[in-house]
Amino acid sequence: MATEPLVIAVDSSTTSTKAIVVDPAGQVLAEARAEIALHTPGIDRYEHDPRDWWTSTREAVGSALAALSTADRERIAAISVTPQRQSFSLFRDDGTPVRPGILWLDGRAAAQVARIGSEQVHRLSGFQPDVTPSIYKIAWLAEHEPASLEQADRIAGVHGYLVHEMTGEWIDSAATADSLGLLDMARLEFSEELVSLVGLQPEQLPRLVPPGSVVAELLPAVASDWGLPGPIPVIACCGDGQAAGLGCGATGPDEAYLNMGTALVAGVHSPGYEVGDVYRTDAAGLPGQYVLEIVQNSGSYLAGWFRSELGDPALAGRPDPALDEAAAAVAIGCGGLVTLPYWNAVQSPYWDPLAKGAIVGLAGAHGRAQIYRSILEALSLEMARNLAGLQRDTGTPLTSVRVMGGGQRSPLWRRIMTDAVGLPLTACEAEEVSAMGAAVLAMAHTGVHGDIAATSRAMAKLGDVTEPDMAAHAVYQELSEVQARLYPALKEAFEAQAAFAERHPA
Amino acid sequence: MATEPLVIAVDSSTTSTKAIVVDPAGQVLAEARAEIALHTPGIDRYEHDPRDWWTSTREAVGSALAALSTADRERIAAISVTPQRQSFSLFRDDGTPVRPGILWLDGRAAAQVARIGSEQVHRLSGFQPDVTPSIYKIAWLAEHEPASLEQADRIAGVHGYLVHEMTGEWIDSAATADSLGLLDMARLEFSEELVSLVGLQPEQLPRLVPPGSVVAELLPAVASDWGLPGPIPVIACCGDGQAAGLGCGATGPDEAYLNMGTALVAGVHSPGYEVGDVYRTDAAGLPGQYVLEIVQNSGSYLAGWFRSELGDPALAGRPDPALDEAAAAVAIGCGGLVTLPYWNAVQSPYWDPLAKGAIVGLAGAHGRAQIYRSILEALSLEMARNLAGLQRDTGTPLTSVRVMGGGQRSPLWRRIMTDAVGLPLTACEAEEVSAMGAAVLAMAHTGVHGDIAATSRAMAKLGDVTEPDMAAHAVYQELSEVQARLYPALKEAFEAQAAFAERHPA
Repeated sequence: MATEPLVIAVDSSTTSTKAIVVDPAGQVLAEARAEIALHTPGIDRYEHDPRDWWTSTREAVGSALAALSTADRERIAAISVTPQRQSFSLFRDDGTPVRPGILWLDGRAAAQVARIGSEQVHRLSGFQPDVTPSIYKIAWLAEHEPASLEQADRIAGVHGYLVHEMTGEWIDSAATADSLGLLDMARLEFSEELVSLVGLQPEQLPRLVPPGSVVAELLPAVASDWGLPGPIPVIACCGDGQAAGLGCGATGPDEAYLNMGTALVAGVHSPGYEVGDVYRTDAAGLPGQYVLEIVQNSGSYLAGWFRSELGDPALAGRPDPALDEAAAAVAIGCGGLVTLPYWNAVQSPYWDPLAKGAIVGLAGAHGRAQIYRSILEALSLEMARNLAGLQRDTGTPLTSVRVMGGGQRSPLWRRIMTDAVGLPLTACEAEEVSAMGAAVLAMAHTGVHGDIAATSRAMAKLGDVTEPDMAAHAVYQELSEVQARLYPALKEAFEAQAAFAERHPA
Repeated sequence: MATEPLVIAVDSSTTSTKAIVVDPAGQVLAEARAEIALHTPGIDRYEHDPRDWWTSTREAVGSALAALSTADRERIAAISVTPQRQSFSLFRDDGTPVRPGILWLDGRAAAQVARIGSEQVHRLSGFQPDVTPSIYKIAWLAEHEPASLEQADRIAGVHGYLVHEMTGEWIDSAATADSLGLLDMARLEFSEELVSLVGLQPEQLPRLVPPGSVVAELLPAVASDWGLPGPIPVIACCGDGQAAGLGCGATGPDEAYLNMGTALVAGVHSPGYEVGDVYRTDAAGLPGQYVLEIVQNSGSYLAGWFRSELGDPALAGRPDPALDEAAAAVAIGCGGLVTLPYWNAVQSPYWDPLAKGAIVGLAGAHGRAQIYRSILEALSLEMARNLAGLQRDTGTPLTSVRVMGGGQRSPLWRRIMTDAVGLPLTACEAEEVSAMGAAVLAMAHTGVHGDIAATSRAMAKLGDVTEPDMAAHAVYQELSEVQARLYPALKEAFEAQAAFAERHPA
C-alpha cells in the first residue's frame, strides 16, 4: 500500500480553490480550501484578480500537503487542476495580468452575442450564442478596451494561467481551452475563423495538448515551496463540468452524470463531435471525445430563492423541514399547477437570455407547499425532457444516472427528480466530484488502473440507488406535456417584458 | 326634522343580513346584523337554508328598530331589501322550502353551462354563459332532482322569497329577478324561450313589478313583531350590485361605481339595453334602465390569499404594513413582472371558467414585495382595461368613479388603482353602500327628494378624492400592453391544465 502513488487534484471554482490528495482507491487523504474574492465592478459584471487563482491554489495545495507525512508526500506522482470554465484574462508573457479576469457569469457581452453569435459559431465551437463563452467577452474587450488586447502577450483561461504559474509554459489542455469558445471542436484546435472574428493574433494563444497528457513538470521553486522532493508532472485536465463525469465513473454514452447544484448540469460522453439544441458540446477529459452537456442555470438556487423570498421569514432561507413535508404530501402536479423555472433565463433547450420565470395555474387552493413543490417539479421536468432530447439525439438510451450536488440530499427533490426522469438515480459519495475527476486524470498518468476511463471507473465511489415509481413517472409525463407549453406560449411576452424593463428599470 | 320620514333598508348577503334605519340625509340612525350559516355539502357546492334568509332579516330589522325611540319608529315610511343575486330556491305556495337554496357562487352547473349556455342566451338574458346565473342551476336540478322541481309551486330568489315572507305575495322586482337569468332583458319580462329551456312552468314564476314600486304592505303580524304601528309599504328593490351604484349617487352613464371588495365590481347606468364582452347587463334600480356591470371575481380576496399563503406566517394573513411599505417603494411594473389575477377564473372580459392565475417574468431580484405589488397592479390593470372597454362600448367617457369596499382603505392599492385607471377616484363614506341603495329606493317612495335618481344624489355621502398621477398612468398603460398578452398566450395551457386536473385531482 505504502508504495501506491498519490495524486494532487485541484478544483478552482468561482468562490474558492479546493485541493485534495487522493490514493488509487479514490480515498481522500488530505484536503484544503482557500477562498477567492469576487469583484462586481458594475451591473452584470463579475471579475476575479487572476493572481488570486494562483495564490489560492498555492495556499490550498500547500495546506493539503502539509497535512501529509513526509513519506506520503514522497508518494505524490502527479498534479492536475480542473478549472471553472469560460473565465479568462489577458497576460504579459511573464504571467502579469493586463486586466482583471472576466468570469463565466459576467453578462456584459449581450450586444456582442447578438452581433456575432450565430448557428455557425455554435456548429464550430460547440456553444450556443450565450453570454458565458469567453469569445463574446473578448469581442467586448476589442470594442471597449482595445489597448488591453494589444498589450496582452497571452490570453488564457484559469487552467492555462495556472499551468503557466506551475510550469513556466503557456500550454493549455484542449478540454479546458474549449470553453474560450475559440476552438474548431471537430478538430480540437483553435479555429482561424473564430480567432480572427474577435481580432486575436495566433501568437496570443496557448499551445494545446490533449487532456491526460503531461504538460510539463512543476517549476523547482513551486515544488520546493510545497515540500515536494522530486520532479512532479502537471497533467492536462478538463473543465470542472466534464471532470464531474470522470469523478463519478460516468464514461460511456449511456451513463449520465447529473449535478443537482446551484445550477442543474448533466452530461454524457460522446465518441464523436455532435451539435444539438438541448446540450452544448465540451471537449471531454477522455482524449478526442466530447461531453454533451445540458445546462439549466436555475437549480437548487431556485429552491433557495423561494425559501428566502416567499418562505417563513423567521427561517431566513434555511431549509424548512415542515415545508418539505407539506410539499411531499401534495399530489403530483398540484391539480395542474406548473412552473417555468427560468429565473436566470434559459439555456437548455432554448438558449433564450430574455426568458424569465413563471408560475401558471394558480388558484385559491394553492399555497406555499404547492408552489414550492411545483418549482421542484419544474426543475425536474425540464431535466427529464432535456435528458430525453439528449437520448433522441445520440440514439443511445441511458442505463445509469449518477447524481451529485446539494439538491440530491433533499429526499423530496430526489424523489421528484427520479420519478420525473424515470430512471434509477445513483448517488455519488465523493464530496468534491469535480476534484475527483482531476484526480482521475492525474492517477491515470501513473498507470495503476489502466487508461483514463478504467481509472475513472476504479476510483468512483457510488452510494445508494433511488428507483423510479413508474406509475408516478407516467403522471409526470402527462404533466410535462402541460409544462412544456409554457415557454412557446410566453416567448413573446418575455420579449415585451424585456422591452418594458429597458424603458422602466426596476 | 321630527316629521321627516325614515326608511328601513336591508342587505341580505352571503354571510349575513344587515339592516339600517336611514333618514333623508342618508344618516344611519340604527343598524343591526344577523349571520347566515353557509353550507358546503360537496366540492363546489354552496347552499343556504332559505328560512335563514327570513329569520336573519326578521332578527336584524327587529334589532335595528328596537334601538329607535317609539317616536322614531312611528316615522318609518317604507322598507326595501337588496339581495345577494343569483341565489335561489324552490318553495311550496306557503313559503316552505322544497330544498336548500343554491347560492351564486355554487359551481355545480358547469356541464349545464357548457350544454345550454350560448351567445343567444347572453343576448336575451344579459348574462354570459357562466356558473353564476340561476338558470344553469335550475337546469342542473331538472337533470339531477326532477322531483324537487315538480314539487315546487314557486321558484324565487332571495328578494322574491323575503317579499313573500313580509307580504304573503309571490311578487318580485324586475331588478332582482333578472339575476335568475330567465328574463328577456330588452322587455324586462320572463322569456318564454329561457323558461321553457329549463322546463319551468309559467305559474311557478313570480309576478314582476318595476323597482321602486310598492309591492304590497307588510303583513300585520310582521309589522307588529317589529313594533311598527301603521301599514308599511314594501318597496321593490334591485340586486346588491345595482344598489351599490344608487347608494353612492352614481346614476348617469358617465358615473361609475367601483367596489374594491372581495371581488372587484364596477358599473354604470345605461338608459337602453346593451350587451357587450367586458360587462354583464343587469336591470337597474332606475326603472326601465340597465346597469352594465364589470365583474372581476378576484379582488381583495387575492391580496388576502397572498398574505395568508405566501406572507409572513406569524401574521396569519392579517394586513402587513411593512409589506405595503416595501411594495410602495417598488417601481411600477417591477422591471416587467406581470400577473394574471384569475385565481377564481375570469369573468370580465373573457368569461372563461378554465382560466387560472399566473405570475410571469420572475427573476432573482423579485421577492415578496414585488410579487405583492404585481398582484395589486394586475387587479388594477384589468379594471382599467375593462372600464376603457365599457366606455368604448357606451361611447360615453366617464367623468367620475365612486370607490367603495375594503380595498380602497389600502392607500397603496388605491394609489395603484387611481394611476392605472387614470381618473380621479372619489371615496364613498357610507359603510354599507348596497344597503344605502335600498334606502334610496324606499326613501324615493316618500317623495322627499323627488325621483329615484334625485334621491340617490341627495342621500349619497362622498369623501376624499384621489387624483391620478398621469406620468404614472402612462407607465401603467405600457405595462397594461404587456400584461394583456398573458391570457391569449396562456388560454390553451389553461385548457391542458384543466384536463390534467380532471385526470389527476389535487
